[in-house]
Amino acid sequence: MSLSRNPAPPSGTAADTVHDRFGAAIAARLDELAAISDEPAVLTRLYLGPAHRRAADLVALWMRDAGMAVAMDGTASLIGRYEATTSGAPALVIGSHIDTVRNAGRFDGNLGVVTGLELVRALDRRGKRYPFAIEVVAFGDEEGVRFTSTLGGSRAMAGRFDAAILDERDGAGVSRREALELFGCDIAAIPRSARSAADTVGYVEVHIEQGPVLEAGDLAIGVVTAINGASRGIIELTGKAGHAGTTPMDLRRDALAAAAEIILAVERRARAEPELVATVGHIETPGGAGNTVPGKVQMTLDLRSPSDAHRKAVLEALEAEMRSIAGSRGVGCEIAMSYQAPAAPCDAALSARLAASAQRCGYPAGSLPSGAGHDAMAFRGILPFAMLFVRCRDGLSHHPDEYAAPDDIDVAARVLADFIDHLAT
Amino acid sequence: MSLSRNPAPPSGTAADTVHDRFGAAIAARLDELAAISDEPAVLTRLYLGPAHRRAADLVALWMRDAGMAVAMDGTASLIGRYEATTSGAPALVIGSHIDTVRNAGRFDGNLGVVTGLELVRALDRRGKRYPFAIEVVAFGDEEGVRFTSTLGGSRAMAGRFDAAILDERDGAGVSRREALELFGCDIAAIPRSARSAADTVGYVEVHIEQGPVLEAGDLAIGVVTAINGASRGIIELTGKAGHAGTTPMDLRRDALAAAAEIILAVERRARAEPELVATVGHIETPGGAGNTVPGKVQMTLDLRSPSDAHRKAVLEALEAEMRSIAGSRGVGCEIAMSYQAPAAPCDAALSARLAASAQRCGYPAGSLPSGAGHDAMAFRGILPFAMLFVRCRDGLSHHPDEYAAPDDIDVAARVLADFIDHLAT
Repeated sequence: MSLSRNPAPPSGTAADTVHDRFGAAIAARLDELAAISDEPAVLTRLYLGPAHRRAADLVALWMRDAGMAVAMDGTASLIGRYEATTSGAPALVIGSHIDTVRNAGRFDGNLGVVTGLELVRALDRRGKRYPFAIEVVAFGDEEGVRFTSTLGGSRAMAGRFDAAILDERDGAGVSRREALELFGCDIAAIPRSARSAADTVGYVEVHIEQGPVLEAGDLAIGVVTAINGASRGIIELTGKAGHAGTTPMDLRRDALAAAAEIILAVERRARAEPELVATVGHIETPGGAGNTVPGKVQMTLDLRSPSDAHRKAVLEALEAEMRSIAGSRGVGCEIAMSYQAPAAPCDAALSARLAASAQRCGYPAGSLPSGAGHDAMAFRGILPFAMLFVRCRDGLSHHPDEYAAPDDIDVAARVLADFIDHLAT
Repeated sequence: MSLSRNPAPPSGTAADTVHDRFGAAIAARLDELAAISDEPAVLTRLYLGPAHRRAADLVALWMRDAGMAVAMDGTASLIGRYEATTSGAPALVIGSHIDTVRNAGRFDGNLGVVTGLELVRALDRRGKRYPFAIEVVAFGDEEGVRFTSTLGGSRAMAGRFDAAILDERDGAGVSRREALELFGCDIAAIPRSARSAADTVGYVEVHIEQGPVLEAGDLAIGVVTAINGASRGIIELTGKAGHAGTTPMDLRRDALAAAAEIILAVERRARAEPELVATVGHIETPGGAGNTVPGKVQMTLDLRSPSDAHRKAVLEALEAEMRSIAGSRGVGCEIAMSYQAPAAPCDAALSARLAASAQRCGYPAGSLPSGAGHDAMAFRGILPFAMLFVRCRDGLSHHPDEYAAPDDIDVAARVLADFIDHLAT
């Protein structure tokens, strides 16, 4: 156990006196968690797997040590509750996830859980309580690696768990239902996880940015404006395969040349639209070869924006442009945008409070949309939520080299401590 | 045997009286050959494989029936000789290949062999001999499917067989040397296959076009000006992988967007250059995914032109443009053009004779370069050679639907008959 290596911050106003203490303590706990993996040498912690079990056990131990009552819900979300001055008061929920992708970094998700728990530990050591309870939640199903759908834990807490996903099966044929039962979860209890504004003040999540914006702006932290909506799908272009040596340029219907023109059109449009990003991330020439004019191309398209109306308008314009490019080359163009997720705007009041706390603590906080999805977005339209991003090195995430500096983590923790301290006012 | 189904053309001047007879007879033999395959249901006849053995045996039988003396050289090329009026006179060689790609069409290669043999058969039936011998050659190593290098048979006949390739191994680990020995070839005799202008009048090859030019020009046949030189290689672009949702457009170094710009530059340049073709036929985004900004792209580049100087100049300009495009995007660009084959211009005198024969027979003959490689190019600088292309449907080749109409084949055979008839004059 690393607890003895992480002395509690001294009592007093946290933000004034414990500089660098939160950061180092959180980083040490993240190191300890990072050793808990389904695979040797790398960090892989899949939902309801053996490492998830061990990580949840360790986090539960930490939660109890931090003065929290611990429970696990029907989706294996671990919930530690630090009571209010009055028992049964509504709770501020601080959460994130402890599952990871394969060969993951140690900050994604785990940072938000450990930051919440370290803050509560400091309050507990000082005997400080608020008119609201604080709950620290460790969701387990954010990455969507083991099963197809994702956010099972946070969606259950938002009261929108879809029972149909219990029948999803992992690569080994084990259903989500079976995996939950093996983990010891009471599936019948899942509906009871649902929260409402009556019992919950709001949801706050600290997370590494997973992008380069804060680093480029020389900022330790940023307040998230919205979790971007996304459109994702496949573009299939069908030209005519031909011999690369014998087919003159003017008799070609080259699917890859059409794809190239489309890729540049996607880039041009996204560059022209503020806050929108568009990506062709994967491309294939099925049956293609160096000596063949490509007859078929399949490629992905991924569009994200904090504004749903904006994203849809750009997608519509892009679809028309793609069809026109392909058509002018005698190339067929099938567009199947099978995935559409609405944007989830962060709560303006909670976000303003986070920004005010950053200001009070003396740190300029950036303001940026989140291009990646997070547990927070499950609460869209159900509970007010806010997110605080922490700068990560080189924008890197989902990679063993993922890194956030203890100093930056410390800034986030101090700002969140101030946020909590002022939430009652 | 199909011989009984293919009556000899009536005697007399072939070009005047046997219209449609050559075509139907040749097509029937091609059908018979097409049934000889290493695989059920599809045509696959690899060099020195069991189907090559059976096809060579059948062609040898046909050659003998057509009045030729038959021999097989050290590379398994089957050579049928129809003597001149005087024994030992120099020979006109009419050749092509009887090996195929996997899942091949029946015309590629086989057409040239069968056309030669059907013409000799007609001469033999009429007892017609010329001051030069006619040799019909069936090479076996044109497609380069079984072993890495290719044109082993025609290169041996050109006196430029490289003994180092005897150590090449096929996918099963069998060396070319072992395969030749198992086929019954005398490897020590390979140098004796070499021909010179002293013993050979020239080499003529009839082949399907494998491209759409004749069809687009409504021409049954075309005289080949040159077998294009080629430069082939791999372009590797290295940008920076990033999260598709969290990496703003202006902070990206997208290897695929750079590739797209390069693909269009390649197309633009090739379109502007007469007779040059350039193709990016295959592209990959290694480790790429729909939600990732591509950090790496590998793609092929294939450039062909009848003029080596032209091809090299365009390649040089393109390389500079590719580096400039990549550089302006902060993307690394490695260009490895590992394969360079010089153009092989057809002999002007022989080609003019072919064109004159077409004229005499009343068929307009197109004139076009060959974008694909052929056995003929092995004779570059050694023997004069010419090629006659036959229109193929839809430009399709290396495919079971490959097709040349018997009427078009007939035109080629009649023109070649006239060519032979006038070669002595």
